[in-house]
Amino acid sequence: MRAAGADMLCSFTRIAAVRRVRAHMATKTEIIEFLAAAFPQSKCVVEEVGNASATIRHPVGVAELRPGGTVSGPVLMTVADVALYVAVLGEIGIVPLAVTSNLTINFLRKPSPDKSIVGVCRLMKVGKALAVGEVALYSEGSAEPVAHAVGTYSIPRAGAR
Amino acid sequence: MRAAGADMLCSFTRIAAVRRVRAHMATKTEIIEFLAAAFPQSKCVVEEVGNASATIRHPVGVAELRPGGTVSGPVLMTVADVALYVAVLGEIGIVPLAVTSNLTINFLRKPSPDKSIVGVCRLMKVGKALAVGEVALYSEGSAEPVAHAVGTYSIPRAGAR
Amino acid sequence: MRAAGADMLCSFTRIAAVRRVRAHMATKTEIIEFLAAAFPQSKCVVEEVGNASATIRHPVGVAELRPGGTVSGPVLMTVADVALYVAVLGEIGIVPLAVTSNLTINFLRKPSPDKSIVGVCRLMKVGKALAVGEVALYSEGSAEPVAHAVGTYSIPRAGAR
Amino acid sequence: MRAAGADMLCSFTRIAAVRRVRAHMATKTEIIEFLAAAFPQSKCVVEEVGNASATIRHPVGVAELRPGGTVSGPVLMTVADVALYVAVLGEIGIVPLAVTSNLTINFLRKPSPDKSIVGVCRLMKVGKALAVGEVALYSEGSAEPVAHAVGTYSIPRAGAR
Repeated sequence: MRAAGADMLCSFTRIAAVRRVRAHMATKTEIIEFLAAAFPQSKCVVEEVGNASATIRHPVGVAELRPGGTVSGPVLMTVADVALYVAVLGEIGIVPLAVTSNLTINFLRKPSPDKSIVGVCRLMKVGKALAVGEVALYSEGSAEPVAHAVGTYSIPRAGAR
Repeated sequence: MRAAGADMLCSFTRIAAVRRVRAHMATKTEIIEFLAAAFPQSKCVVEEVGNASATIRHPVGVAELRPGGTVSGPVLMTVADVALYVAVLGEIGIVPLAVTSNLTINFLRKPSPDKSIVGVCRLMKVGKALAVGEVALYSEGSAEPVAHAVGTYSIPRAGAR
Repeated sequence: MRAAGADMLCSFTRIAAVRRVRAHMATKTEIIEFLAAAFPQSKCVVEEVGNASATIRHPVGVAELRPGGTVSGPVLMTVADVALYVAVLGEIGIVPLAVTSNLTINFLRKPSPDKSIVGVCRLMKVGKALAVGEVALYSEGSAEPVAHAVGTYSIPRAGAR
Repeated sequence: MRAAGADMLCSFTRIAAVRRVRAHMATKTEIIEFLAAAFPQSKCVVEEVGNASATIRHPVGVAELRPGGTVSGPVLMTVADVALYVAVLGEIGIVPLAVTSNLTINFLRKPSPDKSIVGVCRLMKVGKALAVGEVALYSEGSAEPVAHAVGTYSIPRAGAR
């Protein structure tokens, strides 16, 4: 297990490769258009998507801060949720009925009040019924995560749910 | 363990009783004033607090809905987070530096698009360093929860953190 | 939401009532026989099952203790996992392929070294693809939980997985 | 955030570097001796520890299998718990009173019935009161994780708890 880090990257790449043959993967452009139509009030920006991963950026202003000059927990949870959703859409295509079934978030450090929040999601599994991924959340430009989330997406079947 | 439900209620009541002797418990009024000053943009309304528990209501309008007419996940996470925070403040007093250290949420049912979200928190432990509670989230007037959360609050020590 | 506790009980009862019409619910005896055949090495004892809930007891001896005279975390996790599994089987019948998809456990208090661990599970949702429940874990005879878990079970479809 | 993977590694290395100056870090040998004395019945083998990480191996035999030839969930939870504990001891020294405060595990794939389980833990934060880490769990020799856990360790203060 010496090369566990490398193995893990290989694993992620492999998931992506397997999924790529599925006809209904969504491109970054399709996802951005879908989100803009479906969530016009969202401030999240899709930076990257594909390869079983996604990177999301959320600007931080007065509305995102709480006393003491830190970014509110719900903003971090929103970025984690959207990063997971975008990564899943990137693999299974635009499936509006895919819904988060659970999310666990650990808050690690105080975010910077004057930096965007960046969420980097990597999917660990994309099954028929469930997708599972983790999201590392950063204050932009910082290398140490401010929070870490793991979440599960429930993928509806044709005609189900 | 036949009367586990009753036992559990007793247990919650007991935590509350033990805590009540701590001089620095906050009243509902103090908490409402603190939240209004500290989080002026929050839409959460404190309905009840005390006895190691809290009930929070969040109105649902266009800003809280996502396509398909359901309440967005981040709104539910926000209510869970605030309900925990208020319940903790009700026990330890106004300690602005108390912060969520983690939160796990399970989404159970589609919320009603035209009902407020009500979060009912019960603390299971209020220790020196950590408080742990669960929150059941409902569409107002419905008996079946739309989501369930468990969270941990980290309580700073005098001079610590 | 004044009667949230009562509401919650009603909600659990209602889930149970709805499920009861499904032909394939398993009885306590069927579940005990299934577990004995499938997990001969398990020490868990099924105390009660039905009504979208289950109560499990696990004796505590030298093998379950860790230094300092406390019950090891994995024993508590085992009881939580089995309590969820038994409650799910009680609703959907003997479905050996039902598997835990995730589990979150919070450790609250030091268990007694000389008491059995009792796990009381209540299901919050039994859907077609997922069941979600919570488990309160006690040192037998004590009213305050030593741990609390929330878990999700993935229910396979006929011919799926 | 293009180099998020690399950034994350840097971040882990930096945590390790900062901690290295703390006098009371434990070596692999010290940890193995401590675990052998404290948990004589444990089957976990410490493969690596240091640098804010740890690798644990747990052999799989009849006692670890459940019907259908898969490794039982509690074995995976045990490896996750021990990997976190060892990684934490590697940073803060032999502190027997450090206890898991919570653990979330997602089960991703069916483990091989004839391979050891390997858990690779990386700590994301080592604070004064809490340490947080994630654990990827593999069937030995496989690159795709069978499960993923995130956990929190509560670190007692001198004279506290």
